[in-house]
Amino acid sequence: MTGVDVVDTPVAELADAVDRARAGSAFLREKLGDLPVRGAEDFARLPFTTKQELRETPFLDYAAVPAERIVRIHSSSGTTGRRTICAYSAKDLDDWAEMFARCYSFAGVTEADRVQLMVGYGMWTAGVGFQAGAERLGAMTVPSGPGNTDLQLELMREAGTTVFGATSSFALLIAELVEREGLRDELSLRVGVIGSERWGDATRRRIESGLGIETFDIYGMTELWGPGTGIECSQHDGMHVWSDHYHVEIVDPETLEPVPHGTPGEVVVTTLTKEATPLVRYRTRDLSFRYGEPCQCGSPYPRIGRIEGRSDDQVKVRGVIFLPAQVDTVLAEVAGAGSEFQAHVDRDESGRDSLTIRVEGSDRPGLAGELAERFQAKIGIRVDVDLVAMGTLPRNAGKTKRVFDHRTL
Amino acid sequence: MTGVDVVDTPVAELADAVDRARAGSAFLREKLGDLPVRGAEDFARLPFTTKQELRETPFLDYAAVPAERIVRIHSSSGTTGRRTICAYSAKDLDDWAEMFARCYSFAGVTEADRVQLMVGYGMWTAGVGFQAGAERLGAMTVPSGPGNTDLQLELMREAGTTVFGATSSFALLIAELVEREGLRDELSLRVGVIGSERWGDATRRRIESGLGIETFDIYGMTELWGPGTGIECSQHDGMHVWSDHYHVEIVDPETLEPVPHGTPGEVVVTTLTKEATPLVRYRTRDLSFRYGEPCQCGSPYPRIGRIEGRSDDQVKVRGVIFLPAQVDTVLAEVAGAGSEFQAHVDRDESGRDSLTIRVEGSDRPGLAGELAERFQAKIGIRVDVDLVAMGTLPRNAGKTKRVFDHRTL
Repeated sequence: MTGVDVVDTPVAELADAVDRARAGSAFLREKLGDLPVRGAEDFARLPFTTKQELRETPFLDYAAVPAERIVRIHSSSGTTGRRTICAYSAKDLDDWAEMFARCYSFAGVTEADRVQLMVGYGMWTAGVGFQAGAERLGAMTVPSGPGNTDLQLELMREAGTTVFGATSSFALLIAELVEREGLRDELSLRVGVIGSERWGDATRRRIESGLGIETFDIYGMTELWGPGTGIECSQHDGMHVWSDHYHVEIVDPETLEPVPHGTPGEVVVTTLTKEATPLVRYRTRDLSFRYGEPCQCGSPYPRIGRIEGRSDDQVKVRGVIFLPAQVDTVLAEVAGAGSEFQAHVDRDESGRDSLTIRVEGSDRPGLAGELAERFQAKIGIRVDVDLVAMGTLPRNAGKTKRVFDHRTL
Repeated sequence: MTGVDVVDTPVAELADAVDRARAGSAFLREKLGDLPVRGAEDFARLPFTTKQELRETPFLDYAAVPAERIVRIHSSSGTTGRRTICAYSAKDLDDWAEMFARCYSFAGVTEADRVQLMVGYGMWTAGVGFQAGAERLGAMTVPSGPGNTDLQLELMREAGTTVFGATSSFALLIAELVEREGLRDELSLRVGVIGSERWGDATRRRIESGLGIETFDIYGMTELWGPGTGIECSQHDGMHVWSDHYHVEIVDPETLEPVPHGTPGEVVVTTLTKEATPLVRYRTRDLSFRYGEPCQCGSPYPRIGRIEGRSDDQVKVRGVIFLPAQVDTVLAEVAGAGSEFQAHVDRDESGRDSLTIRVEGSDRPGLAGELAERFQAKIGIRVDVDLVAMGTLPRNAGKTKRVFDHRTL
């Protein structure tokens, strides 16, 4: 313990943020009404904003600055439905670059590093976010984009890349390739900044050992500027969130009541400085928890746990809530298990649900049985295990789909 | 005539640029020697730099600033061979944004515009160049990237897009789609900034009439920062080049001697302010000519003609040089001819070359014969015409291949 307090948002700052959002945005004015925020109770009575509302409201009606002050728009990848469009003022872009540069600093990246960005550009926030932050830091950037592993390796060699940004799926793909072809010594990699999908410790260990690097889990999403909302420090014990730009609440996804520190719930974010598309009590759908104690690293920025799933990809199987993160946890603990898996939920003619987890693993005798037992203990229902050879499940350059719900509901 | 003189580069500025490049770059020091540039004759004696040299020299050996000062690299698309990697300092990126903002101003684009960028991001210079310029201007940018016409139209409607950046191939694709589906009145387009490939007047007219817009031909390539080296003004009579950043010579591609104003030759560029990858007498391979007189618009920036081809895609057929631009010229003059074509060069068993031009056109009687006659008059050899229906030749989101040389040489 360092004695440093965790910084939380003063009510006056929340009140200012809400007032600015209301003053600019026709949508938020109508939604929030005009009651002043004089205390924490007033704030807690404000309605939540949902992804659905952001999707259905034209971005110019939602925006809290006039169209002339919007210098860019981005959209979410549409993984869970129609794209959400968010707008950015010049100051928003500047703040974002600054926050992302801070992320790199937390990951020990400096201006002497060479940072290769194997993430999507264009309408998506990943590429330009990772890049603006690295340039703000003064590092050399290699905007290689996603995919094309051969080109990635060629550029890594030519530029002497020391740091990369990627999804965990793509980082795994690169790590497996480098291992298979024995290229590790030709590369200068030392740090991976990994984001945009939930990834478990087993995957993490494979990426780290395959490439000989340290990885940092980074948080963010398009609605929160993009990636760069927070990141792990060298303690690797939760992600620090930039509380000078974001106020974070954790609520029970069903009752929407706040949960105590340490208890998992849905991350709800209010932006404090965002001009063009400010968020007030925005339900991110991400499941995490808030740490109560300051971090060993000494930073006053509050921490949330690494993302355990999304409130809307919680699957209920036979009355029990199943989360992909539960599979990760088991895989990380069982010798011989791989990191890649798919969860298939089926319903038979009698209406009975079943859960099959297809998982990569070695041919160690008894492995499937041990996994089935551990899954059952963790999840609380019987689980069928379909063990497949290492490297046979799909890897890709973006996000990997894990849960396949085949029930017709 | 406006009485404004065309600005050319003072020798002292050239001497400074060459000295800075030599001081920083091991490659250029070795190549250029250390003789001072005291007059135009000294400069004219400096050796040319070629694309091949840029390709073969590791970018860190070529760079004129230490690696720590490089904040980004980009690479060419590799249309004509291996990728060329160019490096950028923070000041280079700043200068580039400034030049590109100037391009938009010449095209009448202001901060009130909404600019959709249907060009590639990542390692390529198009996306980030078009975007940085528009943001510097203060316009709203929509970084939609290339391809996906449905998404493009959706974003144009949602953002109220007034300006777009694209290759001529992709702009044609969009124009044809908008015309076919009668969508023109739902869009707010007024300006297209078109670059990255040679395009003729026939294509231009189809894009302009299909979308009801004015188009501006923009110049540039990765080695010259990227797009944004120069652009047409509202006179549409050649492209102004930013002579505060580029010194332009036009030379005969075979003798490498300077040619008089008005005479076509290869564009050779020396950069005046570029820090990380400066160019000294760089042979761009682009064929154009230099205007002698000031522009009616009153701007002192010198003009070059729109690009007529590349010195390395000049094809010799039966001893005669054939350039795709010659086809464009004919197509623009013949009623019923489309704008899209392919030139196929073949050699029969007796060693005799033939040139077939496959071209889109209407079913007007006599059209094929008239085209064959006009091509022969323009190019100087017999040309076979293969007339195909409108819309049947490939369109794509990037550059369109026009010349297919099937001879085994």
